[in-house]
Amino acid sequence: MIEEIINQGMLAIDQYIEKVVGSQVDVLHDASIHIVMSGGKRLRPKMAMLAYLAAGGEELQDVIGLAAAVELVHTATLVHDDINDHSLTRRGKATVHARWGRTFALLTGDYMFAKVYEMMAPFGNPYNEIMSQAAVRLVEGETLQAAAAKSGNMDRETYKQIIGLKTASLFEASARMGANLATDDQVVVDALANYAYNLGLTFQIVDDILDIIGDPETLGKPVGTDLAQGRGVMAVQNGDASFSGDGTATAVAEKDPLQSMMTRLRESGAVEIARLQAKEMGARARAALAHVPPSPARDELDDLIDLVLDRDR
Amino acid sequence: MIEEIINQGMLAIDQYIEKVVGSQVDVLHDASIHIVMSGGKRLRPKMAMLAYLAAGGEELQDVIGLAAAVELVHTATLVHDDINDHSLTRRGKATVHARWGRTFALLTGDYMFAKVYEMMAPFGNPYNEIMSQAAVRLVEGETLQAAAAKSGNMDRETYKQIIGLKTASLFEASARMGANLATDDQVVVDALANYAYNLGLTFQIVDDILDIIGDPETLGKPVGTDLAQGRGVMAVQNGDASFSGDGTATAVAEKDPLQSMMTRLRESGAVEIARLQAKEMGARARAALAHVPPSPARDELDDLIDLVLDRDR
Repeated sequence: MIEEIINQGMLAIDQYIEKVVGSQVDVLHDASIHIVMSGGKRLRPKMAMLAYLAAGGEELQDVIGLAAAVELVHTATLVHDDINDHSLTRRGKATVHARWGRTFALLTGDYMFAKVYEMMAPFGNPYNEIMSQAAVRLVEGETLQAAAAKSGNMDRETYKQIIGLKTASLFEASARMGANLATDDQVVVDALANYAYNLGLTFQIVDDILDIIGDPETLGKPVGTDLAQGRGVMAVQNGDASFSGDGTATAVAEKDPLQSMMTRLRESGAVEIARLQAKEMGARARAALAHVPPSPARDELDDLIDLVLDRDR
Repeated sequence: MIEEIINQGMLAIDQYIEKVVGSQVDVLHDASIHIVMSGGKRLRPKMAMLAYLAAGGEELQDVIGLAAAVELVHTATLVHDDINDHSLTRRGKATVHARWGRTFALLTGDYMFAKVYEMMAPFGNPYNEIMSQAAVRLVEGETLQAAAAKSGNMDRETYKQIIGLKTASLFEASARMGANLATDDQVVVDALANYAYNLGLTFQIVDDILDIIGDPETLGKPVGTDLAQGRGVMAVQNGDASFSGDGTATAVAEKDPLQSMMTRLRESGAVEIARLQAKEMGARARAALAHVPPSPARDELDDLIDLVLDRDR
């Protein structure tokens, strides 16, 4: 029953996005469709939808636009990230940057972001305030990451700040908007937002672990790229002092073959420590759900924690 | 009297922007301040402010936020344009791209755009609808321009579409938002929006002419760059059939020194034809003002047409 509702909702979200990125300018439409329809995990829109349902929402249609908007703002940042990271593949397909070139990739990201703004406008507040703050944090997180990678100054605190800004903020905003649409009960809204923030942290730590130990074929993208660019190094920071906070990680990656660095990381216990931290964040997410009334949607949110922790792609 | 009000308003707009681009991430703050405070003409915020006053608005403070937002969205696109155009100077200073590198320039543009969204959120509608539509058009215009330059297929219709989307739309949105804040009289709002749209077209045609005949020192940027990239070629299209709509312009620019192409354009009469078209758009802007009640602000808007037509920078 709940699975059926979720599937219906996810289908409606995809259709909504497909419709909304239509443009009089062909390349914007083509490139947007290419990236949006390349099989993302749709975690953020699912978060918006489940938070809406868990907060007592009954008209699934009402949350579709918001859910589509959070997926689209996420996708816009992916397109720009891939330019900055020189990534050629994403989700097993060519990146927009690889296929259409840098200029059109930059404009496609801008277009998607402008479209998000346009989609969100009718919702009024607090939705636009929540979404715009999340967008600002997202960019701040990406920038902090680029700055830390450049200076080699990626300590544990910076890493936490980065993943909070670049990933957890949008998870939080998704749940907060979805829940707010369904209820005036601020305790429930905050609990779902808190859940989503911690699930976002969990997700990002696991993502960074997969960059070190994942299978490129299953992931649909190369591994070791974050590491090579001085990012995603919570594991590094915590597990092996010789790599910590002074640019050594970047320097090592430049001197040694990446492969040997990845092997050393796997063997140092750093990955296991990061995994424990992911589990801790997952437990925090679960604890937050205790303030949400029981429902099939809440059970789904609970199950999602394990899915995020156990994922291999 | 009106000059004093305008000066006060422009100062308040600058202060507002300076405050709003503050970020916990230093480079975003520094790069934003660098470009925003590098002495732009501030035509769009002036448009918002004068439209507000001409439509009967009396609380200048009310329009400052909107006016700051339109300047900031414009500045965001400049930062991204400079990446795509490989421009090293703008307004006589280093571009963000030249000074901070491509990654941070891309993120700075994204940041400014997210900040615009955040600044606009409290205004509700129709303001967010107007601004978001203008943002979408802006990106569409830039993309159409890049696509036309790439294919060499820049005919007169495409040029008109491009300058409407990339320049006139934001002028129009500025005036529409400003006027709407002051009055419910839709005739006045539409007249001011119509004025601004045509002033935007005038401005862009003059800008493209200056790219051909302007003085680089006065302009604070190199000339001929639009031409070299297959853009801003209304003059080309209208004045000289041998350059028209089949990529010849780009081909010539690649083969001949840019200088000789510019000389040929100056001598072909193309610039004079473009100038007449700018004057025609200016006349349309002036005609639109007839539907606005007389006031010192309306006189300023009228004067602005001549300033835009006669500018040399």
